[in-house]
Amino acid sequence: MANYCKVNVSGTDRVELHDTLGLTGAEISVNFMPAGAGVPFVHAHKQNEEIYIILEGKGCMEIDGEKVALEANDFLRVSPKAKRQLSADDNSSLKYLCIQVKSGSLEEYTASDAVMA
Amino acid sequence: MANYCKVNVSGTDRVELHDTLGLTGAEISVNFMPAGAGVPFVHAHKQNEEIYIILEGKGCMEIDGEKVALEANDFLRVSPKAKRQLSADDNSSLKYLCIQVKSGSLEEYTASDAVMA
Repeated sequence: MANYCKVNVSGTDRVELHDTLGLTGAEISVNFMPAGAGVPFVHAHKQNEEIYIILEGKGCMEIDGEKVALEANDFLRVSPKAKRQLSADDNSSLKYLCIQVKSGSLEEYTASDAVMA
Repeated sequence: MANYCKVNVSGTDRVELHDTLGLTGAEISVNFMPAGAGVPFVHAHKQNEEIYIILEGKGCMEIDGEKVALEANDFLRVSPKAKRQLSADDNSSLKYLCIQVKSGSLEEYTASDAVMA
């Protein structure tokens, strides 16, 4: 595995980066949803925590029956078992990242994981 | 642990989201670097893979002695042991996300991890 990998993502097609970047600790997708559109099903996860990062636009996620409004610069953690369904607002498209990581997998981070070189 | 947690991040101060969002599989930081600035040290990681996501501006990361140019919409994976140092361009600030995850921790994702509800 190379020590790094870089890709530039533009356009409005959904892009999944796991294989492209050679990720081993996360899947990251870049997503664009037109105004009025939504994911056509409700889903949960077996073991993955999801983090949604709203880059542009407005939308709503229904989580276990509760409606959570979303807008640019929102960061949203959703637990694996939560039943979720995301949609864009009727009058706004939605550009967002979805990051999947294994729940409970992070052991140390930042200062405790860093090594000065 | 609540089934979800949301926060909106604005401004130019560095924000670390692990504790704020109750993340268990990742640390995510939101970072802003003025033009001409850079991280003042070279570092690597013990076990974490890092993914840098460039939101705005231009910069450069030196990775194991190689200079890698960065611009908006770049997604960059860096292996734990790689020695890295990030800087903004002299004429451009840099807004970016840094995601830390444990290398090799992801077991399944997307269709294989999802449960239709």
